[in-house]
Amino acid sequence: MPTGHVFIATTLDGFIARPDGSLDWLILPEHQGEDHGYTGFIQTMDAIIMGRGTYEAVRGFDPWPYDKPVLVLSRQLAGTEPPPALRGKLAFADLSPQAAMDHLASQGAARVYVDGGQIVQSFLRAGLVLDMVISRIPVLIGEGRSLFGDTGGDILFTHEATRSFPSGLVQSRYRLLG
Amino acid sequence: MPTGHVFIATTLDGFIARPDGSLDWLILPEHQGEDHGYTGFIQTMDAIIMGRGTYEAVRGFDPWPYDKPVLVLSRQLAGTEPPPALRGKLAFADLSPQAAMDHLASQGAARVYVDGGQIVQSFLRAGLVLDMVISRIPVLIGEGRSLFGDTGGDILFTHEATRSFPSGLVQSRYRLLG
Repeated sequence: MPTGHVFIATTLDGFIARPDGSLDWLILPEHQGEDHGYTGFIQTMDAIIMGRGTYEAVRGFDPWPYDKPVLVLSRQLAGTEPPPALRGKLAFADLSPQAAMDHLASQGAARVYVDGGQIVQSFLRAGLVLDMVISRIPVLIGEGRSLFGDTGGDILFTHEATRSFPSGLVQSRYRLLG
Repeated sequence: MPTGHVFIATTLDGFIARPDGSLDWLILPEHQGEDHGYTGFIQTMDAIIMGRGTYEAVRGFDPWPYDKPVLVLSRQLAGTEPPPALRGKLAFADLSPQAAMDHLASQGAARVYVDGGQIVQSFLRAGLVLDMVISRIPVLIGEGRSLFGDTGGDILFTHEATRSFPSGLVQSRYRLLG
């Protein structure tokens, strides 16, 4: 079974996007020149799982930002074809977290980047997130799309490391306990 | 005008208590022996403001844990008498954040510890929180009483310092920007 890994930025109040999906609070001039480790992280991943919300946010990026296979979990998009420019780069499927991991295992993936609020929440509930790198931006925005949600019970983590950056970003790495 | 200061612990998903007020996720054996700085913090405060929720949680503590004047902001309790054991130690009032600060200013307070989710939220909205020390416990509980809520707009902070402890607690200090 592949392991799931989260690498995500949030506001201090736990939002990963504004209600309309905007990330304007995240992309700050003072972050420029800081290496928050994403490139190193993604190099160790074999595949990427995201939901429709994240897909809609990145689908227009040119160039396409991923050089690993992307699986978009979406009831709505499953069975449709990716846009021509993205053929061979991603697939749509309507699968449970477990079934999605089984599918990626059959393709040889061992480490899977799990991205997006709804998807992270469903993989956490399914016990499929092994570790999380959470970067907190020092702003409260009051409303938006939450990183975390219903967990179906307590989920305990071990704190592995924390580092902070001149911009004010604080990044912590947690590993599922037990 | 006195300045407001927050010193509070939350889960990774931003809860300061379970739905029933329980803090069982917070009081962990592995925290014992760690000095998270509360004693030093409270010594620099002149008064404490809390809401009814926090008051109800601490009112039974014996000994009473505060040696500074406590102002409990509560529409329901305002006009009632504190329990006999707490006379002279606390007062109930139904005041806005600004009026509460004015009241404490008239008593000579310069630095005020602002505690409890609802109260912290209302003081943040009023621009009356100068800095926050937030301690994050490495657990997701999925539901409970939120530290943060509606902000009425973005509130930006400067990150001042972060430290982590062997228990996994990560503590960051933020100061209101501008």
